[in-house]
Amino acid sequence: MKLIFSKFNLLKSVNIVMKAVPSRTTMPILECILIDASTNIIKLTSNDMELGIETIAEGTVLKKGVIALDAKIFFEIIRRFPDNDITIETDSKLMTTITCEEAQFNIAGKSGYEENFPYLPIKKNDCFTISQFTLKEIIRQTIFSIAANENNKLMTGELFEIKNNILKVVSLDGHRCSICKIKLLKNYPDQKVVVPGKTLNEISKILSGEVNDHVSIFLSDNHIIFEFDQTIVISRLIDGEYFQIDQLLSKHHETKVIINKKKFLNCIDRATLLAKEGEKKPIIISIKDDVMKLRIDSTIGSMQENINIKKSGKNLIIGFNPKFLSDALKVIDDEEVTMYLINSQAPCFIKDDNEKYIYLILPVNINTFR
Amino acid sequence: MKLIFSKFNLLKSVNIVMKAVPSRTTMPILECILIDASTNIIKLTSNDMELGIETIAEGTVLKKGVIALDAKIFFEIIRRFPDNDITIETDSKLMTTITCEEAQFNIAGKSGYEENFPYLPIKKNDCFTISQFTLKEIIRQTIFSIAANENNKLMTGELFEIKNNILKVVSLDGHRCSICKIKLLKNYPDQKVVVPGKTLNEISKILSGEVNDHVSIFLSDNHIIFEFDQTIVISRLIDGEYFQIDQLLSKHHETKVIINKKKFLNCIDRATLLAKEGEKKPIIISIKDDVMKLRIDSTIGSMQENINIKKSGKNLIIGFNPKFLSDALKVIDDEEVTMYLINSQAPCFIKDDNEKYIYLILPVNINTFR
Repeated sequence: MKLIFSKFNLLKSVNIVMKAVPSRTTMPILECILIDASTNIIKLTSNDMELGIETIAEGTVLKKGVIALDAKIFFEIIRRFPDNDITIETDSKLMTTITCEEAQFNIAGKSGYEENFPYLPIKKNDCFTISQFTLKEIIRQTIFSIAANENNKLMTGELFEIKNNILKVVSLDGHRCSICKIKLLKNYPDQKVVVPGKTLNEISKILSGEVNDHVSIFLSDNHIIFEFDQTIVISRLIDGEYFQIDQLLSKHHETKVIINKKKFLNCIDRATLLAKEGEKKPIIISIKDDVMKLRIDSTIGSMQENINIKKSGKNLIIGFNPKFLSDALKVIDDEEVTMYLINSQAPCFIKDDNEKYIYLILPVNINTFR
Repeated sequence: MKLIFSKFNLLKSVNIVMKAVPSRTTMPILECILIDASTNIIKLTSNDMELGIETIAEGTVLKKGVIALDAKIFFEIIRRFPDNDITIETDSKLMTTITCEEAQFNIAGKSGYEENFPYLPIKKNDCFTISQFTLKEIIRQTIFSIAANENNKLMTGELFEIKNNILKVVSLDGHRCSICKIKLLKNYPDQKVVVPGKTLNEISKILSGEVNDHVSIFLSDNHIIFEFDQTIVISRLIDGEYFQIDQLLSKHHETKVIINKKKFLNCIDRATLLAKEGEKKPIIISIKDDVMKLRIDSTIGSMQENINIKKSGKNLIIGFNPKFLSDALKVIDDEEVTMYLINSQAPCFIKDDNEKYIYLILPVNINTFR
């Protein structure tokens, strides 16, 4: 095999496939990037058996062939080369020579044939299409409320549901729930899957985020495939029936509050300072007339702050884990946010008028703290 | 006590004194910043018993007093306030209220009187003066070759020696030695001290680095004091007689090499990639006519590269720890560097014509690797 790339093109493609190289694995071949130049198109592939990425690297095939190279070493070599053409050449013993200007590396490769490297099971069925911007945004607006630990596997993923040509994305961790809705432009059959959070995190790093670039998403029983630019990302799905969230979404409220998002977020940020280090002190919110009074007491000290609000409905005192509030506020782009509350035991909703986003947050029982 | 500051001024001063707040200590009072407004000048002080910093904070004294506040909490509170005036007020029980706009923190302070907080032993003798730029530069150009571990206390510091109106700064760790010389503008008596590396690292972060800003440096038997802007830094010295380095500095050489610094550094950077993870593989340098050939072999693979040089004297093969070469090259600002070599066992010198900087690096015995 003998290939020539510009450093820029090769590094761009290697960067993409690096996202599916596992940091630890019991199968050493998975630590490799597969370079497949068995045709005149050069494909780079990585696969951690949950998530796989294939991307086309722009380059010239002088001699066809296939090789698997240690991903970390290969990436570091490419990264440190000067900005010039890079040549990759392998011999019959899989010894690989990588050359750029006067610098030459020799590393041992591994067989890139299918009996050695796990090729990606890419089968494309029907797909739906959204912009890269939209996909990146809905991931950002929901990913923070998946569960951090694996006690409940379904909570480590996000529901992607198409119903009546609306894509609904949901994450929840038992204390809060995030919902985003996107209207699809064409008609698609109803379907739903649960996508691993890790897959969404990694794909988010690869997506350009441009409004004019598109992603085609293919769903099957076991896999989800994202196809965009020169890249295909394939991920296993999480098995099981996702939580019924409709029953959580009460339309009823007793108190409605409109508040400046930045002021609210900065105040919570200051409060978090006192709540640190596993103390789990709640922030106590007193809503009275047109003022929200926030207060936190901890062993370090106490903080209080008043923020002007627009309120309709009853006065109320309610406590929250400040992190849950700030996580949601951070991903909302609106200048003002609206909160809907019932009483100090019932969940609080932060949502916009069209319910494009809904954040449900359970309160903390403040009576135990007072 | 009641004081008013702008956030900008207070944060600037707190940032400076934070550098001498210990991260771990058996004396809880050292985790505090002393706010001394016993006169109309407000001084902030921190002291970890090795290093102490006092700085004047611009602010208004409405009521005089002294208080010690937990440094980390105080810093975080100030940092998260909006850009506006900050009021600090203490009551007779040392309870401290810190207010900015609508946000109010209450934290418990500690007594700031001398029987509780260790005041700095500032005694100023004769001093010499250099620019902040120069001090910051000589620290940057030498600090990397102090010893990382405390086996030999003297190696964890740097020699500051004034002799014939030249300030010489030296660091060494047993494998290499860095020397920088600065001509002083006035006449000063000969003297020498060993300054802890930690002190130099911290002061480097506070110095403006401007050519027109100056530092006055006071030396006594036990302490060094740096005075600049509104700030005084005092540090204990390291006891003992520093190493005699003059005998190391051979003027004799067999080979002189002039090489492009950036090319040399980039090549070593690539080589380091293969030398990683405790393998300690040397980079082998073959100097032959007008080409330097660099080669490294490790379990991961091998690399070789040729760089054009200007050479006078004998051809030579010599091995180095690549990190030692790159550490020195990184701090040299010249486009070309000159190396002086004797043989494969003797130290290599990288120095400029005026010997404003001298980097001595011991070679690795490459016969054991071949």
